[in-house]
Amino acid sequence: MKDAYTLPAGADFHVHLRDGAMSAAVVPTIRQGGVNTVYVMPNLVPPVTTVSMALEYKSRLQSLDPSVNYLMTLYLHPSITPSVIREAKKAGIVGVKSYPAGVTTNSASGVLDYESFYHVFEAMEEEGLVLNLHGECPSDHKSGVTVLNAEHSFLPTLKSIHAKFPRLKIVLEHCTTAAAVEAVRECGDSVAATLTAHHLFLVVDDWAGDVFNFCKPVAKLPSDRLRLLQALVSSTGKFFFGTDSAPHDISAKKGLGGDAGTTTTITTTVSMISTKTAAGVFTQPYAVAYVLTALEEAVERGDIRDEDITQELLEGVLGGFGRNFYGVKDESGEKIVLKKGSEVVMESVKGEGVQVVPFRSGKQTWTCDWL
Amino acid sequence: MKDAYTLPAGADFHVHLRDGAMSAAVVPTIRQGGVNTVYVMPNLVPPVTTVSMALEYKSRLQSLDPSVNYLMTLYLHPSITPSVIREAKKAGIVGVKSYPAGVTTNSASGVLDYESFYHVFEAMEEEGLVLNLHGECPSDHKSGVTVLNAEHSFLPTLKSIHAKFPRLKIVLEHCTTAAAVEAVRECGDSVAATLTAHHLFLVVDDWAGDVFNFCKPVAKLPSDRLRLLQALVSSTGKFFFGTDSAPHDISAKKGLGGDAGTTTTITTTVSMISTKTAAGVFTQPYAVAYVLTALEEAVERGDIRDEDITQELLEGVLGGFGRNFYGVKDESGEKIVLKKGSEVVMESVKGEGVQVVPFRSGKQTWTCDWL
Repeated sequence: MKDAYTLPAGADFHVHLRDGAMSAAVVPTIRQGGVNTVYVMPNLVPPVTTVSMALEYKSRLQSLDPSVNYLMTLYLHPSITPSVIREAKKAGIVGVKSYPAGVTTNSASGVLDYESFYHVFEAMEEEGLVLNLHGECPSDHKSGVTVLNAEHSFLPTLKSIHAKFPRLKIVLEHCTTAAAVEAVRECGDSVAATLTAHHLFLVVDDWAGDVFNFCKPVAKLPSDRLRLLQALVSSTGKFFFGTDSAPHDISAKKGLGGDAGTTTTITTTVSMISTKTAAGVFTQPYAVAYVLTALEEAVERGDIRDEDITQELLEGVLGGFGRNFYGVKDESGEKIVLKKGSEVVMESVKGEGVQVVPFRSGKQTWTCDWL
Repeated sequence: MKDAYTLPAGADFHVHLRDGAMSAAVVPTIRQGGVNTVYVMPNLVPPVTTVSMALEYKSRLQSLDPSVNYLMTLYLHPSITPSVIREAKKAGIVGVKSYPAGVTTNSASGVLDYESFYHVFEAMEEEGLVLNLHGECPSDHKSGVTVLNAEHSFLPTLKSIHAKFPRLKIVLEHCTTAAAVEAVRECGDSVAATLTAHHLFLVVDDWAGDVFNFCKPVAKLPSDRLRLLQALVSSTGKFFFGTDSAPHDISAKKGLGGDAGTTTTITTTVSMISTKTAAGVFTQPYAVAYVLTALEEAVERGDIRDEDITQELLEGVLGGFGRNFYGVKDESGEKIVLKKGSEVVMESVKGEGVQVVPFRSGKQTWTCDWL
């Protein structure tokens, strides 16, 4: 690897920007992460299920930072019909995100039976909208499904949707296992996958006992991480960058209940005792830099070969491949400059009543500046 | 199952009673758990590596509750020699606990190379002291060892020690996997295993995102939990009860750093942001009751047969089998009465500057009273 790279502005094809105070805190960190194009997830409360909700959400985001290109999605839901898909296409909405019910943050309205959406998928295939799959089955202990094999258990669903709609563009989001990488490779060109920055670093040991590394899908085994890294550095378009950056206030990560960022006494309230940890890793402010650090560490471990990390590869996985898949261009011509490991990840991003701890807080990463 | 059982006082063959304020808070909960005999782990700071340290620790525990029979152990360490073993035997110390270095709470002084302790094991075999194994290998991502297969990776070590010292009494502590159950079954009568209460309830999904269910070894798959339950209800002596009750202040479980039980502001200090979750589940105050609840739920799930839960079985696994293995008698003749699910697990046990949240806080369990 070189000590510095000049690259086209990054594109992050999986971001959670939330709403309200949290949105105001994290949207300004998008460009800090070396990114000028983001694919915005619709899992607000209530979820973004109509074109007008999506357009209103987009305008709220633009008011926070007009210099970012926000690619909007709808939340797959029984209220989404083929006519909604056609309306969405006209309005410039790029895709529809599917969440299996109950699997992750704000997925209570999610889907379980994909066949009931086949008429919607058919319309999406016709209109060229992308189907984004959160590829996990809900845990079912009777049949042995846990967070560890939830993604593996979902892969037959991916293949069946692809077989039924071979021209439908599908992205298996944030894939975490060797099996998922293999399944995506076995599908045609209409199927791609996003890789997060944090899953290039983490294995199960890293979230066992560390709430800031806990997310869904959970990080798996070293052998899975190896295959993700190999998929990234050997990608010619099927695998590209999407952080799944998922900000939660520290009180939600620590399972403290109470209000975001407020003073809390750890000796009282029952909610603090029983509240669980919110799933999600916040990577937005260092999105591109983390990937360079992950590749650097993987080379040191011997997981990947230094010579595989070329200028062309970085341009592709960090923006070009995703833009091609989605058919979006970066007219801005903006460029970023990355320099090796002289940046220390900040303690937290603070907003009005919110405090979000970034991934690898206090650790070193690459610097990322705009040219 | 019956709605009520009268049983001999329980014996808990794996407890962490800590020291100081924490000890003062949790020792009084031993009898509340239906137990009058405890096998006390030596992982204090510094670890209990001499006979005098063990006897002094025992007297501190007796001063907190003289009505409990404290069976003491030493912490396997280079300073433990055959002569220390003989001295320990004379002093009434029952066993020696081995912790693989770095695997769990206060295991920094633990062992890695078991062969270097063979002369100690030989003396233990001669003197009839029990070797208690924390059966996990340290994580090693190069060789693929994580918290998920750390126990499985340790089993060859168990078998090799047993093969070398066939008369040495060995307990594989808190076993969590089908593979461990099988390995213990394949060994001779000198090898037994303890089963905790919480591993009869938990699978990986339960500690993913819930710090109060996080412990080492981590809970594994539903298929593993099934085998633990089956091992318990089919036990004729090889599998018996040891809670591994491991109290940590709520601030350590929540990864808040700072002082135990003090008022903490969650928006400041870096330590709160970076501090990790302490491993351990606190089950002492409901030790026996939890097991009854676990069996009740396992019957409802269809994991075990109702008719397998006999009076004889409960008397064995909850005390008799362990007492037989260790060669200790309960002269007290004390009895406990368990009644089905009318107790609600308390919010927390509070002491001077400490607050410990019990397993399944707020959930229902069996009542346990002394006859």
